[in-house]
Amino acid sequence: MKKGKYAFGVDLGGTSVKLGFFTSEGELIRKWEIPTDRTDDCVNVIPDIARSLRGEMEKEEIREDDLIGIGMGVPGPVQPDGYVEVCVNLHWHDLYPARQLSDLMGGVPVELGNDANVAALGEAWKGGGEGAEDAVMVTLGTGVGGGVIHHGKIVAGRHGLGGEIGHIHVRDGEPEQCNCGGYGCLEQVASATGIVREAKRMMQKSTEPSGMREYGDQISCRTICDLGKSGDALADETIETVARYLGLAVSTIALTVDPDVFIIGGGVSRAGDYLLDKIRKYYDSFTPISKNRGRVVLASLGNDAGIYGAVKMVL
Amino acid sequence: MKKGKYAFGVDLGGTSVKLGFFTSEGELIRKWEIPTDRTDDCVNVIPDIARSLRGEMEKEEIREDDLIGIGMGVPGPVQPDGYVEVCVNLHWHDLYPARQLSDLMGGVPVELGNDANVAALGEAWKGGGEGAEDAVMVTLGTGVGGGVIHHGKIVAGRHGLGGEIGHIHVRDGEPEQCNCGGYGCLEQVASATGIVREAKRMMQKSTEPSGMREYGDQISCRTICDLGKSGDALADETIETVARYLGLAVSTIALTVDPDVFIIGGGVSRAGDYLLDKIRKYYDSFTPISKNRGRVVLASLGNDAGIYGAVKMVL
Repeated sequence: MKKGKYAFGVDLGGTSVKLGFFTSEGELIRKWEIPTDRTDDCVNVIPDIARSLRGEMEKEEIREDDLIGIGMGVPGPVQPDGYVEVCVNLHWHDLYPARQLSDLMGGVPVELGNDANVAALGEAWKGGGEGAEDAVMVTLGTGVGGGVIHHGKIVAGRHGLGGEIGHIHVRDGEPEQCNCGGYGCLEQVASATGIVREAKRMMQKSTEPSGMREYGDQISCRTICDLGKSGDALADETIETVARYLGLAVSTIALTVDPDVFIIGGGVSRAGDYLLDKIRKYYDSFTPISKNRGRVVLASLGNDAGIYGAVKMVL
Repeated sequence: MKKGKYAFGVDLGGTSVKLGFFTSEGELIRKWEIPTDRTDDCVNVIPDIARSLRGEMEKEEIREDDLIGIGMGVPGPVQPDGYVEVCVNLHWHDLYPARQLSDLMGGVPVELGNDANVAALGEAWKGGGEGAEDAVMVTLGTGVGGGVIHHGKIVAGRHGLGGEIGHIHVRDGEPEQCNCGGYGCLEQVASATGIVREAKRMMQKSTEPSGMREYGDQISCRTICDLGKSGDALADETIETVARYLGLAVSTIALTVDPDVFIIGGGVSRAGDYLLDKIRKYYDSFTPISKNRGRVVLASLGNDAGIYGAVKMVL
């Protein structure tokens, strides 16, 4: 039995830091945010977090002894020993952020994880996964992130590449280069940005009328999904293409780690079952080997996935 | 500390059963084989194994109390509770083989795994992986099998699909159907059978002279590899195509579970570095995101991988 009755979950982002105060049972008592101080290459961020956590402890009248630990997600790859070589968004280089936070918190144990992996853990535990021990999350936002959860723990990988689902190659012949240096990554077609680009390509190569054309270059991913849902053929074809590559990635991952559940999150997932049903269709067609395989569900925690996953690392 | 000083590893195949007697430290004391009795839908196989193990125990003058346990690999998917729905090769249906063997062995603990997964564990532990805690094996034989090892244990998956790497979809537009029902599985291009088919296609669509043409329909995978190695352009192009899809699968798996090492085994891997260097080239090109990632190495235990992996499940 672990010592302490409470724990903190911290989700460190480029704009704000989300913090959560939890019971040892994983019940959220209070959550709040502080801005990410971006001055001086973000050197103040960890001290700010420590100060904010200490403030909460004073308010709740608890001491270091009452804490099980602190879990924290950071926007970059984390090595198995907690080393962070680089967090591009924070201008961080060569840091051990968990050690730094622990020192400032009187030696309370701190666990560190990559933010996408940590969100996956949160969704597996308290979100769309509903307690799944083995889950894979695919986050469709500005980019495509992901996380693999095996037996209730993050598969961070030996080099921090675990769950880097957005950079799986899915499409041959893609002429544009991805941020990672590759051509044809999942992120290039299934992120919000990628979906918009796909829609523009669809409009260019076809003369078919479409509600999308009214928006021209200003078309948004949300509009494409809404139009597709309401029967616009070209918008629907766009989402069909996106879902095909997502279904392929989901199938491939199922044949590698075979989780209970795939959790689809991020802004694009607001398209709901319209998108999910298409993903399921292609997932089926790429995985005829067995009908018994992981379900595809929607994420449900929204922006709280990070603090839930973070705290889970220490519970 | 576990009770007992010895353990058995059993690798149950369609033709023969390989058995190994090991110390608790994982040193192989003796190995032997018995034929797989295929009469009556293989109902005698488990009793035969028990008899053979008891014979060894008498010879070594050890009792049930001296055994830590027995690990066994079987040629089919194994559910998390040890249930085997079907082993096609053995005509088995609806069995709990571990329970049956344990009952016949006086209650000694028996752990069960899928044979491809078990071989992966063996290679990770004592073979090409040289003690890697996180490894993925790709076995290129008549079919393509695989296994994912995470933190020293098999990732069997929630539905027995863990490590079913051979049925990852890698190639669009494949007209022939795979045994699994899919089109364009890795197994269709990278198994010995697949490589032969690929070579025949190469010969058909080109008029280029090639040493492969002398063999006609009788060409073997080994000959193709040998010719490719010795500079035959069409044979080399065949292996190049095969390696591209293997490199793609390896890259995809690296971005999912990020192991220490990828171990390439099976008969086709006898092509050695000629094949591996090509796989590495495509793995690199599909994974520009980081130079730090799992190495690609050759398997080294041959037919003993199964008994090593089997015994590791109980040590």
